[in-house]
Amino acid sequence: MAAIQALRWDGRRLSVVDQTLLPGAETWLALTGAADTAAAIARLAVRGAPNIGIAAAYGLAMELSARPSLGALEEGAEILMASRPTAVNLAWAVERVRTAALGAGPSTIASAARSEAQKIHAAEDAASAALSGFGADLLSSARTVLTHCNTGALATGGRGSALGVCIELAERHEGVRVIACETRPLLQGARLTAWELQRLGIPFSLIVDGAAAGLVRRGVVDGVVVGCDRVAANGDVANKVGTYAHALAARAAGVAFVVAGPTSTIDVGTPDGDAIEIEERGAEEVLQFGGVLVAPSGTSVINPAFDVTPASLISALVTEKGVASPLDAASVASLLA
Amino acid sequence: MAAIQALRWDGRRLSVVDQTLLPGAETWLALTGAADTAAAIARLAVRGAPNIGIAAAYGLAMELSARPSLGALEEGAEILMASRPTAVNLAWAVERVRTAALGAGPSTIASAARSEAQKIHAAEDAASAALSGFGADLLSSARTVLTHCNTGALATGGRGSALGVCIELAERHEGVRVIACETRPLLQGARLTAWELQRLGIPFSLIVDGAAAGLVRRGVVDGVVVGCDRVAANGDVANKVGTYAHALAARAAGVAFVVAGPTSTIDVGTPDGDAIEIEERGAEEVLQFGGVLVAPSGTSVINPAFDVTPASLISALVTEKGVASPLDAASVASLLA
Repeated sequence: MAAIQALRWDGRRLSVVDQTLLPGAETWLALTGAADTAAAIARLAVRGAPNIGIAAAYGLAMELSARPSLGALEEGAEILMASRPTAVNLAWAVERVRTAALGAGPSTIASAARSEAQKIHAAEDAASAALSGFGADLLSSARTVLTHCNTGALATGGRGSALGVCIELAERHEGVRVIACETRPLLQGARLTAWELQRLGIPFSLIVDGAAAGLVRRGVVDGVVVGCDRVAANGDVANKVGTYAHALAARAAGVAFVVAGPTSTIDVGTPDGDAIEIEERGAEEVLQFGGVLVAPSGTSVINPAFDVTPASLISALVTEKGVASPLDAASVASLLA
Repeated sequence: MAAIQALRWDGRRLSVVDQTLLPGAETWLALTGAADTAAAIARLAVRGAPNIGIAAAYGLAMELSARPSLGALEEGAEILMASRPTAVNLAWAVERVRTAALGAGPSTIASAARSEAQKIHAAEDAASAALSGFGADLLSSARTVLTHCNTGALATGGRGSALGVCIELAERHEGVRVIACETRPLLQGARLTAWELQRLGIPFSLIVDGAAAGLVRRGVVDGVVVGCDRVAANGDVANKVGTYAHALAARAAGVAFVVAGPTSTIDVGTPDGDAIEIEERGAEEVLQFGGVLVAPSGTSVINPAFDVTPASLISALVTEKGVASPLDAASVASLLA
């Protein structure tokens, strides 16, 4: 099965697929430094926390190749960090490259930055592969797997988190089929997950989010696997809006509900799901599509980006370091050791 | 609060609001006989089982006003019944008008048909009003009510079933607010329910279907009220896809989940929800959004029109004859007596 890449590094230059044009067109952007990389991140041509971090790291390294100076380092770091101010992984990746560059001499500042960016990229790839393997072990008897949003190569650098599990499962077994939820309001499932699965040749069906629970109830689904934005200390999980209903349906039908994400999403500083602030996004995401207004103008909207699934509904938390039970604090802590 | 009408009868002519143009434009179609009424039904300018029945009854009566003959009666009945062949209520209404016309003499055939059509219309209005009152009694302490799809005047002739309950509640109490689910794939909530609520001046917010469960979990919702397409003998309910997840969320949060519909939807010949055949609709409803292709072409789709909510999750079944507990066969039977 040919792998999908959202980022290509040729040793000197980074190319990224412009995700704002998918699935209609696969257009690659050749990036050359901090400014154009920051712009690509800001307009969501590059998305997904791991991908954003990798791209920003390469963006800073390319800037230093063109202008090997401390001034360029600080300017580049600043412009990249400002491209998505709330993306924790972006700031972390830029800081890693900056620290490596500061520790090098003037003649090696660019090569030190490149080397660090490549390390970040390789580590994300390896983490994704490890997580996918652990998840496929766990769901080894599942043949029809339901997933939500986009958690594949377009988000994570490697083959993905939840979607990586599905892909690994399809590589290991005959007859694996994915059910992809379209994921309103931004339709990442319809636009991105469907594109990845079609490219990989993995059989799949697209559904509206509201159809998931009924299909789970009818016995169509053997397992549900979703990503996560944050895992609280008590095992509650915040993920893309729509996730919680899938968890309720899985529990009611006795189907495994698996959350897949890197250990970096486990936030021991957040006691539980109620302590996670839910980002409220703009009304136009719900009111419009493709520039067409679907609801009466002036309609009030509630548009939470995430919802919280309580730990009690989660069969397992799959990370790059192994599998934990969200209800068992010791097993979660062992992943962080 | 001004009532919304989807159908206007002036004693001789029927006008209907063209629902295919909502919410962008409110365009009224003046209908004159069987052929144009059948065409309006076939292209979904008129929708909702009770509305279709009322419109067809008037269509046949208008045909007989223009051509008071048995030939026109049979031709008109045939063309109207063929406009939505699976709509039980349509066939029932046409048959009622036909029977009344057959019992009249040549000079009174048209007036007998008009009179019967007006009776059907008045009975639907009265049923809707009674149901709305029973539902508002039941949910009298709820101030934020979540609903799904469109079950208002645009569907039911009167003020509606589930949406009628919301409207009645808002008339009786200060501070009532409706949360309307957009209802993918056809967006009846965003297009039609939002339009009705805006016109009525009832405060409401629109959400994507996947946001409902999280809002219920966060305590935002005091009650959920939905319509129904069919109630099985054991109390299981088939309704628009997405309903079942709302029921699961309501149960998990201890919130009332109320199903509202006429007693004509109770089908004692269907033993349970698993015996209800779920209509599978076309892929283009999911693949496109507002006429724009959102998923890769060639994507496979599962698009069930309905899902089944088990009786155990339903707090009450509200009908025009009163309220029953779906788990209590005797209370359901008493509605049918």
